[in-house]
Amino acid sequence: MNNIFKEIPKDLTNEIFEDLVQGSNIKVERIISNGQSSPRSGWYDQTQHEWVIVLKGEAILAFDNKPDVKLKQGDYLNIKAHQKHKVSWTTLEEETIWLAIHYD
Amino acid sequence: MNNIFKEIPKDLTNEIFEDLVQGSNIKVERIISNGQSSPRSGWYDQTQHEWVIVLKGEAILAFDNKPDVKLKQGDYLNIKAHQKHKVSWTTLEEETIWLAIHYD
Repeated sequence: MNNIFKEIPKDLTNEIFEDLVQGSNIKVERIISNGQSSPRSGWYDQTQHEWVIVLKGEAILAFDNKPDVKLKQGDYLNIKAHQKHKVSWTTLEEETIWLAIHYD
Repeated sequence: MNNIFKEIPKDLTNEIFEDLVQGSNIKVERIISNGQSSPRSGWYDQTQHEWVIVLKGEAILAFDNKPDVKLKQGDYLNIKAHQKHKVSWTTLEEETIWLAIHYD
């Protein structure tokens, strides 16, 4: 058994992506952000859908064709495949812990 | 956008299972327990794997062939397909909120 809030690496200079479980066509990952945002230019454009929830911290997701969404603890949303998006902000007050499910 | 900790139904006489998202062969659900446990006789014996995390509350999972596991906030584990299991206890102090991912 593991805990999503524990074993946080000390070096959070870069965002951290860790696979928690992998299935035939799904992947569950923990993402730890610490004030990072996606590169200014470019969007994530993924072939799979992504369901994300913020379990700690705060973040803002930006989309290419709709308003930004601010996510606080417990907030979740679904990002359809090829919905261009990026993380435009994460809090510096504490680390932001995401759970992301990539699926078809 | 929704929040996993909000819109808790008032009537928690029975455990509540809600689908949050469904993919080609995955299902993500929120489970809300309030002191319930699985029926005393019988086990869950599922054809899909299940990854579960307790996001609020406390619970004990029992297995047919290994020791019980107590889950507190943030604890997660993976239950392989056909691993017989059941919820043997959930706290009465507060509702227990689970996120469960059923996948192949």
